[in-house]
Order: sequence, then C-alpha cells, then structure tokens
Amino acid sequence: MRLRADILGIESGGKPIVFLNKHDADEVGVTASGRIKINSKRKEITAIVNISTTSVKTGTIGVNDEVRKKLDLRQHSMVEVEVATFPKSLQFIHHKLTGQRLLYHEILEIVKDVVEGNLNEGEITAFVTALHMQGLDLDEALSLSSSMVATGKRLNLHKKIIADKHSIGGVPGDKTTLLVVPIMAAAGVTIPKASSRAITSAAGTADRAETIMPVNLGIEEMESIVKKCNGCIVWGGSLELAPADDIFVRAEYSLYIDPLLLPSIMSKKKAAGATHLVIDIPTGRGAKVKTIGEADLLAKDLIELGRRLGIHTQCVLTHGEMPVGYTLGASLEAREAFSVLMNKFNVPDLIDKACHLAGSLFEMIGKDNGYHLAREILRTGKAEKKMREIIALQGGNPRMDLDDFQIGHEVKEVKSKKSGQVLWMDNSSLVEIARAAGSPKDNGAGIILNKKEGDKVKNGDLLFTVYAEKSRKLSRVEELLTELEPIGVGERREMFIHKIKESPLVKRAFVIDR
Amino acid sequence: MRLRADILGIESGGKPIVFLNKHDADEVGVTASGRIKINSKRKEITAIVNISTTSVKTGTIGVNDEVRKKLDLRQHSMVEVEVATFPKSLQFIHHKLTGQRLLYHEILEIVKDVVEGNLNEGEITAFVTALHMQGLDLDEALSLSSSMVATGKRLNLHKKIIADKHSIGGVPGDKTTLLVVPIMAAAGVTIPKASSRAITSAAGTADRAETIMPVNLGIEEMESIVKKCNGCIVWGGSLELAPADDIFVRAEYSLYIDPLLLPSIMSKKKAAGATHLVIDIPTGRGAKVKTIGEADLLAKDLIELGRRLGIHTQCVLTHGEMPVGYTLGASLEAREAFSVLMNKFNVPDLIDKACHLAGSLFEMIGKDNGYHLAREILRTGKAEKKMREIIALQGGNPRMDLDDFQIGHEVKEVKSKKSGQVLWMDNSSLVEIARAAGSPKDNGAGIILNKKEGDKVKNGDLLFTVYAEKSRKLSRVEELLTELEPIGVGERREMFIHKIKESPLVKRAFVIDR
Repeated sequence: MRLRADILGIESGGKPIVFLNKHDADEVGVTASGRIKINSKRKEITAIVNISTTSVKTGTIGVNDEVRKKLDLRQHSMVEVEVATFPKSLQFIHHKLTGQRLLYHEILEIVKDVVEGNLNEGEITAFVTALHMQGLDLDEALSLSSSMVATGKRLNLHKKIIADKHSIGGVPGDKTTLLVVPIMAAAGVTIPKASSRAITSAAGTADRAETIMPVNLGIEEMESIVKKCNGCIVWGGSLELAPADDIFVRAEYSLYIDPLLLPSIMSKKKAAGATHLVIDIPTGRGAKVKTIGEADLLAKDLIELGRRLGIHTQCVLTHGEMPVGYTLGASLEAREAFSVLMNKFNVPDLIDKACHLAGSLFEMIGKDNGYHLAREILRTGKAEKKMREIIALQGGNPRMDLDDFQIGHEVKEVKSKKSGQVLWMDNSSLVEIARAAGSPKDNGAGIILNKKEGDKVKNGDLLFTVYAEKSRKLSRVEELLTELEPIGVGERREMFIHKIKESPLVKRAFVIDR
Repeated sequence: MRLRADILGIESGGKPIVFLNKHDADEVGVTASGRIKINSKRKEITAIVNISTTSVKTGTIGVNDEVRKKLDLRQHSMVEVEVATFPKSLQFIHHKLTGQRLLYHEILEIVKDVVEGNLNEGEITAFVTALHMQGLDLDEALSLSSSMVATGKRLNLHKKIIADKHSIGGVPGDKTTLLVVPIMAAAGVTIPKASSRAITSAAGTADRAETIMPVNLGIEEMESIVKKCNGCIVWGGSLELAPADDIFVRAEYSLYIDPLLLPSIMSKKKAAGATHLVIDIPTGRGAKVKTIGEADLLAKDLIELGRRLGIHTQCVLTHGEMPVGYTLGASLEAREAFSVLMNKFNVPDLIDKACHLAGSLFEMIGKDNGYHLAREILRTGKAEKKMREIIALQGGNPRMDLDDFQIGHEVKEVKSKKSGQVLWMDNSSLVEIARAAGSPKDNGAGIILNKKEGDKVKNGDLLFTVYAEKSRKLSRVEELLTELEPIGVGERREMFIHKIKESPLVKRAFVIDR
C-alpha cells in the first residue's frame, strides 16, 4: 500500500514509530503495536504502528524522526507499506513469561531488538518484569552481559592489564573514584573509568568530574587520553558501551525494580576491556545493600559472573550508613576530593575507602601492600600530579585550585537543638535535602556536613550547611527541614523502633543509580 | 516554569503525553516517563513526560491531542509546568512485582490510573506481566472485576432477570450468538448482548452482526432497543462498559498472555447488568482450552467469580476441534445463521450448540426442558421474527433475505487428492486462510466448508471453497495452500504424531479474542 509521509518532528528515543489512520491500518492488516515494513527508494525499515482515528488522514503515514532519518524522507514523500511479522524475539520474551530459562541466542535476539528499536516500551518492560519476578540464573546473566557487549561499542586499549572500579552505590557523597583513578594511573596502571550521572542521587561521579573538566568524550578521545596518561574519568552515557542497558534502565526506573543489576555492571566493564575489577558494596542501613549476608551473596555472584566473562573481580564491603566525607553535591564533592589530592584537608573515611579500593586493585595485579602503596601515592602528591595531567588531556584547566569550584551563594545553616553526640545520619533525608537545594541539576548546590556520626554536639552547634544557587530552591529546603530529621543527636540510642498494629506496608529504599 | 505549547497533532489512545526539551526537563526536575502537572487557565492535568534533545525547542512543550483537549490549548498558549509525584498506583504495581497480593483499594487505584491515562504503556505491561507470572487469586480477580466495572459505564435496564451469553472463543465459525439472542428474546427474556470484533480470528460476533445491521450503538440506544424487544446484538467497543479491559488487552496482545481473562469477561457482564450467564467453553485440540480437565477448572473459577459478583453462572463445554457450521468469514457466517433462523438450511452442529446454550439459560431462570423450548422457538419461526424486530430497531432492513449478503466474487475451490473420510480439520490453518482471503477486514471474504469431520470423501471431491473480494488476496491464499493442510483426509488416523530429538520448542496456540 502506498502512503504519503507526514513528518511529525518528534523523537522516540531511537525507536522507529509511525502513526496510521485506522482505515489504512485495517487495509494493511496491522493492529496497534503491530509492525509494518516501510520501503522508500530501496531503503527499508520495520516500524512499530500507532493507530489514530482522527489526527492522521487516510492515505498518509505519520513518521517520527527515527523513521525520517533512516529512510531519508521529506515531507510528502511516498512510501510503500506492508505488514511485517512480529519480531522473533517476542516469542523468546513469551518463553520467559512462561517461566522458561533463555539460551544465549534467544537473549541475544532480544537485546538486538531492544537496541534496534524493534520492541516497544511495553514489550521491553514485560521482559524486565519477567526477569525480576522469575529471577535470572548466572547462565542468563552471562548471556545478557555478553549480548549487551555484542550490541555496543568496545574500548580497544591493547593492554594486558586494565583495571576498573565500580560502586553498587546508594551511599551519598561518594567521591572515591576521583581519588582511585589518579592513584592507579600514577602507578602506571591503565584505568579507563566511565561513570554515570545522578538519577536519584545528589551527584554521580560524572557530575562531580564535570565540575573539574569536560566528561562528554567520545570513545576514540577516551582511548587516546588513556594511552597518554593511563587514566580518565568520562561520562559513560555517550560511549554506547552497552546501549541496551540504558534502555532497560528506563523501563525499570518507575517500577523500582533492578533485575539487570549484574549484567548491567559487568557488560559495561567488559566492553571497556577490564581485566581486573574491584567492586565497592556499601553495606548497612540507608545503603542499597542492607546486611553483610546480602552483600556476600551479591559479591559471590559478581565474582562468578566476572570469572565467566574473563574479568578478575574482587568485592570490597564498605560502611554505607552515612555519607562518605563531609560533602554532598557535585561541586562541593569535587572540591573535597581535590583538597584531599592536594593534601590540604584530611578526610579520614574518604582516604581510607579510596586506599582500600585502590589497594585491592594493586594486590590483584601482583603488587604487595596495596593499601600502603595507594596511601603513599596520595601523600607524595603523585596522585594530584596525575589528576592534573588527566584534567589537561580531557580539556580542563590543569592549574585549577580549590577557589575555582563554584559553590551556591544561598546558604542555610542547620544547628542542633540538643546536646549529646551524633547517633545516626539518614542518607535518604540528606539526599532529599540536597536535591531540593538543586542537585544534581545545579552543580553548586549541596550540603556540607559539620558533624558526622560519633561526633560530640553542643546545643546550638552547627550540624550541616545547605548551599543552593537559587533562593527559591532554598525555600523548598526550609520547608523540607520542618519534616525531616537527617541527623539524630542524643545521649544514647532510644530502644523503641516502631510499633506494628495492622498489616504493615513494607517499603524498601530503592536507588537505581549505577 | 512557564512553557509555550506546541500542538503536535497526535493521539495516544487516551494518555496525556508531553514532550520536553532535555534542558527544560532538568530544570523542572523530571526524567523520562516521569510526570508533570500542567496548568492553563485554572485547568490542571498530569501528563507523562517524553524527553527530546533536538526536536522540541527549549521553552516549549510538545502536547498531544489528549492534553490539548483537556486543557483547551491553542498553538503557542502559555502553560505553567511543575514536577508531579509518581502516581500512588505505581507503588501497588511494585507490590505485585514483589509477589504480594493486592487489596481491593489498591487494585481500584491501579485500574483508575489505567483508565485516566496516568500510567504509561510500560507500567501497565509490568502489571499485566506480574499478574501473568504470579497468578491472581479469586479475591484479586473479584477486585479487578469490580474495579473495571466501577471505572466504566453501566447499562440500566431495571429488570429482575437479565440473561447473557459468552464464549471463551477459539473455535472458528461460531455464529451461535446470532441464534441464541433472538431465541431468548422471543421467549420474553431480556438479553442485551454486547459482542467483540475479531482480533486474531476470521470474524467476531460484532463483525457478523454488522453485515445484517448497524452495531456501533451507544449505551442509551442499546437500553432503548432492549426495552422494546428484549434483545440486541451490538459492538461492545463503543459502550465503555469496562474501558480498562481494552487497555489491558492492548498490553497483552503482542506478548501472547491473557492473565485477565476472568475479570475481563465478568466485568463486562456485570456492567451490562447480567443476572444469569451461560459461558460456552469450546474444548479440544485446536481450541483455546485443550482438555476437559482444564475446562472444568476454568468453569469452577468462572462460576465462583460470578457468585461473588452476584451473577448466576453456568458453563457449557462444547466440542471445539472443528469450525461450527459450514462457514468462516463475517458475511458467510451471518448468512448461514440467517438461513437457520429462516429454517431454510439445516446445520445440525450449529443448531445443537445454540439450543444447548439457550436451553441452559432457560433452565437457569426456571423454565423446564430448555433445549426443547429453544428448538421449538427456532422451528416455529419465532426466533426469525424476533431477529427481524431487532434488525429494524438497530437500523437495518427487517425484510432482508439470504441474497442480500455480499459475498466475495473471487473464488478458489480446493479439492481432495485422496479418497477416504475427513479425519481432522485444523482450526488455525482454516483461520489463516480466511484471513489471507481478507477476513476480518473484508466482510465478503471467507470459507465455505463442503465437508466436515467424519464425512466420506472421494478423490476430486470439493473439500472447501475460499471467497475473497480482491484477487490479490486470493493469490496469497493460493500460496498459503501450498504450505497448509487444513483438512486431513485418509482411511484411518496415522499413529505417528511427531519425534522429539533435541530440546523441543513448546508452542501453544494463543487467541486473545474475547
């Protein structure tokens, strides 16, 4: 059937989508969410069909930008349309829905169709939901990891040893990567770090690094920088290392599920060519992983999946019940990390954590006393020197100083109304406050913690300070502060937790930032 | 944040959808598939956000027709936008994803948001997938049925007894409803029949009835007709009796799952006010329900769900291994049913089935010898007379005759190449052929069966005849006929079924027409 193209000027995140009039759809023999093949001047594409009764005229086909580009269409170009069969991957998704385990070639077919836009939002969500409900075994996790690598780009550094570091996330203020990368690189170890931006947190490593230097680099630039100075810190989102993952994350986000955690992490590391990987699992109340037992199980799976993918993997469980260091928010965190690199400020927990992670990597590749080695590289200023090299190569100012970080000028100080000590800090309330202040969008927004767990507090002492770029956002913070108690001060822990009367609503914190 | 509306001129099946530039989305603090509240001249709506980097300009908001209408927007109207929280129903969907059973108020919240367009395609699919994988118990099925009734329109006939009939479907050529409705109505029983169109079959009851009379009636017209003549046969799709169901069906369709079968059927019957319901369960190879055991279990659940909804329900298991009567395709089937009503043609299996179903309904409301009563109403022409009354009231020609049915002029006769008897008929191949010939889009397309199971056949005898409106569709049929064997002729059944060598791919016929 021949139809006249109507260019709608909308994008659909990579998916080829068309709109047909009900009458034409019936004539072609296709129903909503069915597929049609569209031909124009020897180019062919399969697109997902939306049906409209009024806004698309009979004889025309509304096309989104994805279809327009791939077929090189102009307004009112004529195209030839015929019904296409459902993609074969739908059958494999259906198998998973009936509880079957999927084989590699089946998973590869699904992942390919996800990346090529042949599956609609609902179909992708059905797959993710089935994985969540049914679970996936390590064979399936391996197939997913490999498929996600096979359908994306790869980093080619031609090195025997390539180190990488990952955090399961969930603990705020974690600027460890900004220390680990220069420490490793200063020791001559290749560490091509790709990081994510914040989704639900106050800042991602890519957000932090971006306050120091450009991070939106392409894969070739990344390769060339790492070849020159061993390391880099770039945003992973533009590298297309495992593009399927970003699409799965979008499907998971509003459902608060994350069945693809393992393949998601490991596929990106594999695509980056990692041979040795250390994974930080922040553990405890307020972190993503609540108990040591849970963390151990996760570690076991990560290590085994790494083994099957040919990546030597170690996991380090870290204390996750309060923020790392004294800051939350991109600029504040980057400045704090920078002050530690410059040996101008002592942040014991941050330094301890970074040296443990870098130390583990050192020991994995055969160097003794890893922790001590990392500490020395930091103490002697070698890490700072390496960081400035990386900054220069990524296009930042290598002579930047602590004053160069832009911090918000709107300030709200929060003081204690009691004396005693800090008994607990509530990660999620602190993140909520930082986000209300403007994080992650406003780099200069965030929190400086003036006290941390265990610190003595007198009535009227400063507990924390909120920074914002815009005064209206600070007003939102002030409202929030009337509801939240982000830092608990007292003489001793109260015994009472809560009472259960009727059927309780079990809620669990869920953070999808990877 | 104030944005300028850009009217995109697309519809999204009832869902309010907007497109924001990435920059504006960050500023508002919303991510893809998040929600925003939009205000314009004291009207407010919550819409789902799509994010575009290039095609939506900063400072503008692309709106679909649903948003335009509800806010009464013109091109370049200014609107006020702020971030909205995720709907509460998402949390309940998440509960189902973690394996919890849902309570009535939770399910009602989900169904409400489905109908109001507050959940996106992926979120609805996640819910349906979870129901499929987790299963739903009768309490949940009841909650779903009641919620679907509560969020739709209802038929108000103010009668003590309202009969209804439903078929689980899957057997081709089933024109039984065209007999059952006039039989019941002729006996003075109220039977307001709403039927569906074909999705994957050759014809739905609404398609068949439409070749006789208009079926796109509104709920008030339907009420007024039934008050005058006790019965009607209309298309259910425009009645909005349980609009959530249509949305769920769209999510299920390409995934080949149907977890909402029970609530879907029963909610529509409850909304139509049914007090007495007979459900036909075609059973056997080639039908949706394969075994009597399976059918009995389904029947048990349907009856119990009916009891809880206050609908007296009986199930009738019928032979489903071959088409009912001698025809497939809307016009051919309607003509066959009409010829039976007029006592001009004897179709034993069709008459038997219709009288069993009508007879069950008669007995449920206290009349003895139901089957015999139905048979007499048919034999004496009372059913025909009632049908002509219904036709007149629905706006058709009450004097229509068998010649008035429009049958396709393109004909392909298929003859037997063997002698023996018809050993089996393959429902799905016959449907595939009818659909290739143009069904359900072309009413005049379809099949006349010249032989049925058990009939003696000589080499060269006519097995069936295919009718099409368009010659190119008949060519497709001819191609198909080289691959398919829709009717098996032989001396005796061969013992060999098939061999299993490696891991078999288990496929199951799936038909979602309700």
